[in-house]
Amino acid sequence: MINQTYLAMLSHKSVIRELSEYATARAAEIGNDNVFDFSLGNPSVPAPESFRASLLGLLDGMDPVRLHGYSPSLGIPEVKEKVAASLNRRFGMDYRAEHIFPTSGAAGALAHAVRAVTEPGDTVLVFAPYFPEYNPYIEGTGAHIRVVPAKTEDFQIDFERLSEYLTEDVAAVLINSPNNPSGAVYSEATLRRLAEMMESREREFGHAIFLISDEPYREICFDGKTVPYTAKFYDNTLTCYSFSKSLSIPGERIGYVAVSPRCESAAQLVPVMGQISRGIGHNCPASLIMRAMADNLDQTADLSVYETNMNLLYNKFKELGFSVVRPGGTFYLFPKALERDSAAFCRKALKYDLVFVPGDGFGGPGYFRVAYCLDTEKVRRSLPVIERFVREEYPDGSAF
Amino acid sequence: MINQTYLAMLSHKSVIRELSEYATARAAEIGNDNVFDFSLGNPSVPAPESFRASLLGLLDGMDPVRLHGYSPSLGIPEVKEKVAASLNRRFGMDYRAEHIFPTSGAAGALAHAVRAVTEPGDTVLVFAPYFPEYNPYIEGTGAHIRVVPAKTEDFQIDFERLSEYLTEDVAAVLINSPNNPSGAVYSEATLRRLAEMMESREREFGHAIFLISDEPYREICFDGKTVPYTAKFYDNTLTCYSFSKSLSIPGERIGYVAVSPRCESAAQLVPVMGQISRGIGHNCPASLIMRAMADNLDQTADLSVYETNMNLLYNKFKELGFSVVRPGGTFYLFPKALERDSAAFCRKALKYDLVFVPGDGFGGPGYFRVAYCLDTEKVRRSLPVIERFVREEYPDGSAF
Repeated sequence: MINQTYLAMLSHKSVIRELSEYATARAAEIGNDNVFDFSLGNPSVPAPESFRASLLGLLDGMDPVRLHGYSPSLGIPEVKEKVAASLNRRFGMDYRAEHIFPTSGAAGALAHAVRAVTEPGDTVLVFAPYFPEYNPYIEGTGAHIRVVPAKTEDFQIDFERLSEYLTEDVAAVLINSPNNPSGAVYSEATLRRLAEMMESREREFGHAIFLISDEPYREICFDGKTVPYTAKFYDNTLTCYSFSKSLSIPGERIGYVAVSPRCESAAQLVPVMGQISRGIGHNCPASLIMRAMADNLDQTADLSVYETNMNLLYNKFKELGFSVVRPGGTFYLFPKALERDSAAFCRKALKYDLVFVPGDGFGGPGYFRVAYCLDTEKVRRSLPVIERFVREEYPDGSAF
Repeated sequence: MINQTYLAMLSHKSVIRELSEYATARAAEIGNDNVFDFSLGNPSVPAPESFRASLLGLLDGMDPVRLHGYSPSLGIPEVKEKVAASLNRRFGMDYRAEHIFPTSGAAGALAHAVRAVTEPGDTVLVFAPYFPEYNPYIEGTGAHIRVVPAKTEDFQIDFERLSEYLTEDVAAVLINSPNNPSGAVYSEATLRRLAEMMESREREFGHAIFLISDEPYREICFDGKTVPYTAKFYDNTLTCYSFSKSLSIPGERIGYVAVSPRCESAAQLVPVMGQISRGIGHNCPASLIMRAMADNLDQTADLSVYETNMNLLYNKFKELGFSVVRPGGTFYLFPKALERDSAAFCRKALKYDLVFVPGDGFGGPGYFRVAYCLDTEKVRRSLPVIERFVREEYPDGSAF
């Protein structure tokens, strides 16, 4: 018989997907130009030309039996060496090839990292607001997700709450900076304090607490800043990365887990992830994509559009009186809705063909997510529509 | 802490891998030409030129944002349509796009198929001899593997034994034709009888018993024959395929599950596999590879070398008095060793730089696997070495 657990999951429809399907249907009706779809975090810029050049070079220059041949289950050694070298150069780390585990994007990275450092029944902490897919990634391993409430002033960490939540059953803490959906970038001070608290609890409980750092937005950082590299601050760190955003190649599903050489069991974690792969039938990412990725580690697509869009939207929301934290990176804004029920707020926006996503699924009820992976021209055209929506629906400003 | 279950798996080293590592080390010592490595089932012929042409065409002709953009989690619709159309044309089926689930090769296909039709604790039957990775694929889902003893005369199915093993707790039967390691191709008569027995037990037990058909060697079939298409014989069939062998692109890890439209829950099985993917972080295969695959569904690499090699080796083993079933396909032979302990037999062969794999891990103790993915010239050179090994180590023929 069909598996009943997964069958039951089918009935929980994704709000993001439903909204995005609505937007697509509406676009077919009134024209794509007239629907402002801020629902999907889907990179909108082309991959850098160097990525295409690498693929062409591999297809032209490499023996096809070697190029398309079996890769070792822990990844192609040259690829792993290049990833380690790039991280070492950029972030002053000391990874070696054996600390790098190539994966099918950040989803694959997280699924392996969580499984590697938990036993069924363990707890994994995440911080609100958070990417809803963390639920299946974590629960799918047999571990349980527990959500630390948000610090809504700046979307950094509420350490008083963390102190309550960081109990003995916590095997891992999962962070995401820059953050989907808030756009917040954890400061060095936040990371330092997080490391101190986790180290102190490790000593108290007598077991490692792993930090799983989900960093697919690491290269989308605003105001000329860079994102502090989490693994510099805490030894037991597994860094999960995807090239979906930096190289704008989400369909190619390529990423990695980087195990800090200072981790407990550092030498065994990548081989253990290899064993996890056997059970879930994942294996290595596609060879061709892995090799082209390794040639483009220090490249990015032209990501400047996201900062331009962020400024336009942030300024408009501020001007309209929204409570909104200025993002440090990503392609998201997470303003407070103008009424308590953010789903109702988003439904009203739909009447203006503005597609926002209620924050409830992100653990941020009362907020809404704005994904601005759109042409800047379209973002500009959306601004008067947003203004009209707010003035007409909320003539007295915030409803509470 | 590191997960103890997966850590324990690390200590069970793969015999195939150990032998292959030995062969590589020995090749470094005495030269690759002098080591006859029959250990690894690793395609040795180049991908068809049309595969490269498709990749170049996609890179030249398609908008990069669309080419490398997010694919739906159940696969790119055009790709799924093409796969369905090709299967319908070739095998007289009536698949539609929604019955096709693209995966990371056969490993991904099996992991999803098994999980989709079992609950933890259910039994999945396999037939000896079988691919050892079925153990983690099945046990990794929480189901249990149970091995039906081999019918060693011809490596078809021993239906008397199957009748004992096909009990009420069996949720699925996993077959592999053409078979790794025996090379056997199930005849139409075998498939028909299997279907009859399974249908009768379905009626008796009042629940579906799914047939998971692992077919990565479907296109490597000898003597001008074709492999009977399993799903034609039994309604509740999930067909698992990989292009690793047919297109000779094992590193690209691309395959699919095809759900028979006549399956129980046929409309839900692909969406359920999508939910399974969420939990294991697998998602869709790489877009570029998926699209190039879809352009090459009716192509194969030049697979004739495998039949040439098979004939050379089969005739030599027969001439030397081995008990060996002539393979109908694959790139494997599975002869009976000349002493009861096939590991001892393989150790003796190593002295002649002949690398064979003992059958024990395949559920075929007393047998050994010969993978002949080598240049024919090298296979020819191996024949006198095999002869010398047998004459010197077993001067009186079989030792039992």
